[in-house]
Amino acid sequence: MTERRPSAAGVRAAANRVAPYVTRTPLLPLAWDGGRLWVKAECLQQGGSFKLRGAFNRLLQLSQGERERGVVAFSSGNHAQGVALAARALGIAATIVMPADAPAVKRDATAAAGAAIVAYDRATESREAIGARLAAEKGCVLVPSFDDVDVIEGQGSVGLEIAEQLGASPDKVLVPCGGGGLSAGIALALPDAQVITVEPEGWDDMAASLAAGRPVPLAEPAPPTSCDALQTRLVSRLTVGALHDRGARGIAVSEEEIRYAMAYAARHLRIVAEPGGAVALAALLAGKAGAVSDRTVVVVSGGNVDSAFYAAILAGQAARTA
Amino acid sequence: MTERRPSAAGVRAAANRVAPYVTRTPLLPLAWDGGRLWVKAECLQQGGSFKLRGAFNRLLQLSQGERERGVVAFSSGNHAQGVALAARALGIAATIVMPADAPAVKRDATAAAGAAIVAYDRATESREAIGARLAAEKGCVLVPSFDDVDVIEGQGSVGLEIAEQLGASPDKVLVPCGGGGLSAGIALALPDAQVITVEPEGWDDMAASLAAGRPVPLAEPAPPTSCDALQTRLVSRLTVGALHDRGARGIAVSEEEIRYAMAYAARHLRIVAEPGGAVALAALLAGKAGAVSDRTVVVVSGGNVDSAFYAAILAGQAARTA
Repeated sequence: MTERRPSAAGVRAAANRVAPYVTRTPLLPLAWDGGRLWVKAECLQQGGSFKLRGAFNRLLQLSQGERERGVVAFSSGNHAQGVALAARALGIAATIVMPADAPAVKRDATAAAGAAIVAYDRATESREAIGARLAAEKGCVLVPSFDDVDVIEGQGSVGLEIAEQLGASPDKVLVPCGGGGLSAGIALALPDAQVITVEPEGWDDMAASLAAGRPVPLAEPAPPTSCDALQTRLVSRLTVGALHDRGARGIAVSEEEIRYAMAYAARHLRIVAEPGGAVALAALLAGKAGAVSDRTVVVVSGGNVDSAFYAAILAGQAARTA
Repeated sequence: MTERRPSAAGVRAAANRVAPYVTRTPLLPLAWDGGRLWVKAECLQQGGSFKLRGAFNRLLQLSQGERERGVVAFSSGNHAQGVALAARALGIAATIVMPADAPAVKRDATAAAGAAIVAYDRATESREAIGARLAAEKGCVLVPSFDDVDVIEGQGSVGLEIAEQLGASPDKVLVPCGGGGLSAGIALALPDAQVITVEPEGWDDMAASLAAGRPVPLAEPAPPTSCDALQTRLVSRLTVGALHDRGARGIAVSEEEIRYAMAYAARHLRIVAEPGGAVALAALLAGKAGAVSDRTVVVVSGGNVDSAFYAAILAGQAARTA
């Protein structure tokens, strides 16, 4: 029996499946170097990130019995909100395992979406073990945040939207990367685009994995990062496989580059980008994206950031440029 | 000879005319009272506000000779950027008369769009007189910010987009209002919607004008307001006429309600709203909008706000809710 792998056909089916439930986020022009390129503002998605797409694609394919037993997911926040919102829309009970130090904006929104939240200590407990135990106890389906064919294909709907909105295949797409679900889905959706994954410095295990052609664990100890959404310690064979097949490569950005990109997004695009959602824009602004054109697309993947922290970043950046 | 007045047919023609040049801004769902309503995020427009639409509609109808002589506009910032961007795209020279105390973000962006800027003192000089003098000296066309049929009809394209994106006529639309160009255009575009104009407290001369059925000058002295984009001292017969014909009414919001709405927009919609752009959302959040439904639309009309000021507002609001 061969393992099921995510595919371009699967992404197309997913895009049709989730379209009635998700927001078609805008592709915003960004003046650049005398011309322009494009920003896919997926931070404007319901729940504030692309995660809603994969969640809907997974949940819409559950059997009636599975729907009745409910779902469980573990997530620092964006996947949590995606699963919680999709579950509520479909009348499915959801339990979310979140780190106790998740941003309040993400925890509150997940609770507001009607999910039961189980907090754990990121330093001493394994969310995977807690999630698996809950799944076993309740007989409910675990919805992985990236290591899942349906989830990857659902996220890939972002890529199809980009091509439709651009009216052509992009030549290059820069994508924020944690576990690689969004990047892999986009790589499958856009076979003619160069895909570049972007991670925070010291958390660029996808870059290492793409270079090696297999999942390479994060080099520990990893440095502190503001990108709570991108703190993945091991990517998956599914995501690395899809990206490696397409010749994707990974790059990394600094915390200061990320803060600059968040302020730039607010000022020039009028969108709120969370740190992890801003890394691809940070790579562009830092000149790390290589050659760009009017068919280059930068994905801003999420916008859930605590208000006080966000305000402090904007104030700090304003002071630097004043 | 009868005066030309803005019309629904004119709005439809304008929408077709400007479509290739403007961003189709998203209609974002907002969870509300157990259901949802909609936010037209026009702050995501190029130049950061709806003003690009009216500018393109006016400039695209200039004769070749008029194009060659260039255009002049006076504006605190958003209309300035709209005219500057549209003029550059069409190869037309633009001169913009701006108050010396306009937000730096607006002045810088206008200059970046290639326009020549003439600063004036808001307290001691008349921008109308300066604009008229420049127009006379150079023989160029003055592009008014709201008292103009083509400009009003161009702004109305927002309304047609709303109906298309909603798949139906909204039952109610809340619109930020300065001179009334956007509100009047939307009222013409959406004949089955109740249109409510929203202004800052003490600057609600459109509310007074709609009650009177004719332009009523602002009651002086008006209080300080953060809404630099809505400091209109006299609306026009064209805008009041279109709105009054449709039974529109006006309401006002406080500075604190506006700050709350700006923070709410960042947190729940991930969009940057400037003070003047947030007044309609502020009215909703303050419970001043009356009955709402899943066909109610709130327009966020602009997102150009100085970074340090914006950061201070977000920090202040975060401290209130912490």
